[in-house]
Amino acid sequence: MLKSIIFTLCLVGRITAVPLKDAQPCQISEGLLYEIRSYQPIVHKIMNEIVNGRFAGQTWQSLAELTDTFGPRMTGSQQLEDAIDYAVKEMIQDGLENVHTEDVPVPHWVRGYERAQLVEPIHLELPILGLGTSVGTPYGGISAEVIVVQSFAELDELPNELIEGKIVVFVPQWVSYGETGTYRRLGASAAAKKGAVASLIRSVTQFSIGSIHTGVQEYEEGVRKIPTASITVEHAEMLLRKYHRGEKLKIHLEMHDENLGMFMSRNTIAELQGLVYRNSSVVVVSGHLDSWDVGVGAMDDGGGVMISWKALTYLKALGLRPRRTIRAVLFTGEEQGVWGGRQYFENHKAQGEEEFNFFFESDSGTFNPLGYGFAGNDEAKCIFQEIVKLLAPLNATEVSSSSSAGPDVTDWSAAGYPGAGLLNANDRYFWFHHTAGDSMLVEDPANLDRCAAIWAATAYVVADLSIAMPKTILHN
Amino acid sequence: MLKSIIFTLCLVGRITAVPLKDAQPCQISEGLLYEIRSYQPIVHKIMNEIVNGRFAGQTWQSLAELTDTFGPRMTGSQQLEDAIDYAVKEMIQDGLENVHTEDVPVPHWVRGYERAQLVEPIHLELPILGLGTSVGTPYGGISAEVIVVQSFAELDELPNELIEGKIVVFVPQWVSYGETGTYRRLGASAAAKKGAVASLIRSVTQFSIGSIHTGVQEYEEGVRKIPTASITVEHAEMLLRKYHRGEKLKIHLEMHDENLGMFMSRNTIAELQGLVYRNSSVVVVSGHLDSWDVGVGAMDDGGGVMISWKALTYLKALGLRPRRTIRAVLFTGEEQGVWGGRQYFENHKAQGEEEFNFFFESDSGTFNPLGYGFAGNDEAKCIFQEIVKLLAPLNATEVSSSSSAGPDVTDWSAAGYPGAGLLNANDRYFWFHHTAGDSMLVEDPANLDRCAAIWAATAYVVADLSIAMPKTILHN
Repeated sequence: MLKSIIFTLCLVGRITAVPLKDAQPCQISEGLLYEIRSYQPIVHKIMNEIVNGRFAGQTWQSLAELTDTFGPRMTGSQQLEDAIDYAVKEMIQDGLENVHTEDVPVPHWVRGYERAQLVEPIHLELPILGLGTSVGTPYGGISAEVIVVQSFAELDELPNELIEGKIVVFVPQWVSYGETGTYRRLGASAAAKKGAVASLIRSVTQFSIGSIHTGVQEYEEGVRKIPTASITVEHAEMLLRKYHRGEKLKIHLEMHDENLGMFMSRNTIAELQGLVYRNSSVVVVSGHLDSWDVGVGAMDDGGGVMISWKALTYLKALGLRPRRTIRAVLFTGEEQGVWGGRQYFENHKAQGEEEFNFFFESDSGTFNPLGYGFAGNDEAKCIFQEIVKLLAPLNATEVSSSSSAGPDVTDWSAAGYPGAGLLNANDRYFWFHHTAGDSMLVEDPANLDRCAAIWAATAYVVADLSIAMPKTILHN
Repeated sequence: MLKSIIFTLCLVGRITAVPLKDAQPCQISEGLLYEIRSYQPIVHKIMNEIVNGRFAGQTWQSLAELTDTFGPRMTGSQQLEDAIDYAVKEMIQDGLENVHTEDVPVPHWVRGYERAQLVEPIHLELPILGLGTSVGTPYGGISAEVIVVQSFAELDELPNELIEGKIVVFVPQWVSYGETGTYRRLGASAAAKKGAVASLIRSVTQFSIGSIHTGVQEYEEGVRKIPTASITVEHAEMLLRKYHRGEKLKIHLEMHDENLGMFMSRNTIAELQGLVYRNSSVVVVSGHLDSWDVGVGAMDDGGGVMISWKALTYLKALGLRPRRTIRAVLFTGEEQGVWGGRQYFENHKAQGEEEFNFFFESDSGTFNPLGYGFAGNDEAKCIFQEIVKLLAPLNATEVSSSSSAGPDVTDWSAAGYPGAGLLNANDRYFWFHHTAGDSMLVEDPANLDRCAAIWAATAYVVADLSIAMPKTILHN
């Protein structure tokens, strides 16, 4: 997941999720309660076939094939476009319907040669990963003295003359992704405003084995663009200690990263079309197919993509076709700024009230599933909670409140459409996030089955229910 | 720690440590028991001053200063020699006695440019770390098809014609360092015997975040020397899956690693000289000052070195001088094949029976201390167990049996000298072992204090006891 600034609030909301209050008791008609509970046998069947039956282990195998075949799927890369073509082909093979793509212009940022070295007082290689959208250095690189700060406040207090011509290293302590990630996103412009020639940031993680975490950053308009990259937590802390001991530090930095303008990518769409409603009241299940260029994006967001895609495949194979269409959307360009999600909203918002019923998104890992983070009005929440009780056989009945169902559908959440993000036991999510460690090793076949199982079962019930999920659309 | 083949048995012994049997009850005289118990107040004082008192946090600070100042301390490097000079200077500053070095010829292997790329069926960078003593490839590198095996048995079953001219990738599953590490140590020659042109090995670890683990390897005499390196667990597993799917894999490998012959390094020695015995019945506390060239060797073996050194410093500062000399030995060249330890044995073995009483070594991490792995005869074991009961305030009273007190003193253990290695909660030790993640982040100040505390207290009691520790010297 990208977690750009526009998503910070939702993320924080999801991570520090608040259980639904009992204060406003749900008022659901006996008839609706009875109807929801009547789905228990079918939910059992779906979950059992995915977890213990003929689909057991298949989601992991499909994800391994995707990631092994194409490797990382960076926005703007041929690998991503090849993976999109492959998904289209395979989805048709799976018997899915209305398989197609929708164009999305995305920025094409490429990583070039990147190297940082501490050259004073000792010589040490500092492995780096340039941050998405970062400009490069001149060829030959730049050498500059180093200022190490732990916060924006600390930087602000320093006189501009001190920062002028220096490389600023941000070493914020881990608090949360939302808070600590701010330094990654906004550090370069903050440093540039004080006269810095480049900035480096402690990788945004709680735990490291010499890991470097990339991610996108945002230049502030009107501020000089300076090169910016992440370094390991190990090196960041070491530089901080040396700086505090009064040592004069000098770094040589060379980065040939480039912004190559816009590139046409695609959202990838497939459907299990509804028995009754085909192009209206659609239930979306989603994730993003693009990844960073380190690791292979098995966790971020291969798992989310694969459970969304395979939910349809498994339901179809089981001969289960709900009243409403379930539509899998594999977004593109998420890591570079939620480009696929925002384009999808632009394309579909005019007809949104008729077209959509509910938005699922999984983009916080597919570890052991715990339930959902729900976004929507109280009435919808009450109904959704009853549906989620059906997942008791997999102990995934938690429902917390969130302002967004996920980064790619956050515009829909903000507009008042109901939706839900997958809650899972993702305590170690940021250990692997945007690193070389985002691989199939992070994904456990049984956990992935359980995620696919609740994803398919919940989407089925929401799509088949006699009523649409209530929504309170905000018209701006 | 190196864990060369000669140490495999000891390591396995230490890790699968067996509690002392109750079958042979200890027979210690009432007088000796009384004497040992009389050390409780002084043990309390030592431990309290280190954990809560004036030395609290100092061991971590000293280790940070060492590792931050010199970075990695590879055998043969100027950094290691500078670190040795620094240790000598600081030990004198600390008021330690008979501070000196003893020459040790060590092999000088240097890592050059190293790069591996999967070039078929997709292009993917495979970060590698050449294994110590590996030869390089020709300039321009080699390109070859890939054979992936999970065991030596699997390799043996394949016809030589199939292996001829190929790169063999070993992907053994993690069992233990002793067992799985065999592939790192012996894989190159095993592959070369079948005609391979290079070999790669899955990093030897249970857990990875895209981490590469280096380590030494051993060419079998008379077998062609081929380049060999480790790759990440992530990439190893990916290559295995692709190979099992029948994909034809091709790797381009270029390594400019070189063996530059021998280099003169030094073991670093300091003493807290005994009140009664000065050059006889010495109690050795030890670790190794050299490290790999990735990370900074804070864990392997900075922690072991620092608690050995500072045990003397703190006892001296507390005005505690035992009857016997406590000698800190910071070995050199351990990672390249226990060169410092073996040289020390060669130099001192003739006068060993008179010179030495006991050998402590810490080279398995300095996480929360649990007690000791003891090597020696039953009588010594019984006495040592009683001493270790004094560590109850820090819950570090475990005593297990081992065939060796540690890699650098393993020759002494084998010859029948009593000794003990630090047992600690090192479940994650191999996560960081020989990687860029071996940094100060692995070391916790409070844990390091506790390790230093039991190290100093135990060494003090062993060195001050009215009797020497019993030994059964084997004369070969």
